[in-house]
Amino acid sequence: MSENEAKQAGAAPGGERIASLNLRFDFASYADTRRFLDQMADLSKREDYYPDVSFGKTYANISIDGDGQTALQQRNSNFINEMKALAAQLGSS
Amino acid sequence: MSENEAKQAGAAPGGERIASLNLRFDFASYADTRRFLDQMADLSKREDYYPDVSFGKTYANISIDGDGQTALQQRNSNFINEMKALAAQLGSS
Repeated sequence: MSENEAKQAGAAPGGERIASLNLRFDFASYADTRRFLDQMADLSKREDYYPDVSFGKTYANISIDGDGQTALQQRNSNFINEMKALAAQLGSS
Repeated sequence: MSENEAKQAGAAPGGERIASLNLRFDFASYADTRRFLDQMADLSKREDYYPDVSFGKTYANISIDGDGQTALQQRNSNFINEMKALAAQLGSS
C-alpha cells in the first residue's frame, strides 16, 4: 500500500492545511479487488462517509481530502484504519 | 450521462488516433451507484474487460482508452452499450 499526500489541502480547525490522503491498494485478483470494494461499501454505509474511489482490475485508489479527514476526526471515526485493515486482510500490497 | 472524449488517444488499426471515452453516470442514491457497480463487475467478468472506474456516493466515471475500444471492437463486444443500458435501467442521468 502506497500512501502519498498530494497537496490538495483542506483547512483544519486551527487553519493549517490538511493534505489530501491518497491510498493505493494492489490486489492479486479481480475477485479480491471486488471483495475489498464490497467491504468498503459496507464500511462507508456504517460510517456514513463515502470517499472518492477509483479502481481497475487489481487495484483501488482511495482519496480522502482535508475536509473528509476533518469530518472523520470530529466523529472519532476509525474509517481509515478499518479500511487499511480490510485491505491487509485481503493480502493487498 | 455525459460523454466526453478526452484527448488521450490510442492508435486504431489504420493508425488514426482513438480518443479516450469518458462516461459519467449520476445516480439518485448510493444504493443505485452500488447496484450499477455490481452489475458492471459482472459485465466485466463476462466480457473479460476491466475499464478504469472512479466513483463517489452518487456518481460513477468509466474511462475506456483507445486501446480498450480497439480490443472491444475486435472482439465484437457490446460492452459499452450494455454498460449504458445498465445505467439507464437504474435511472441514471
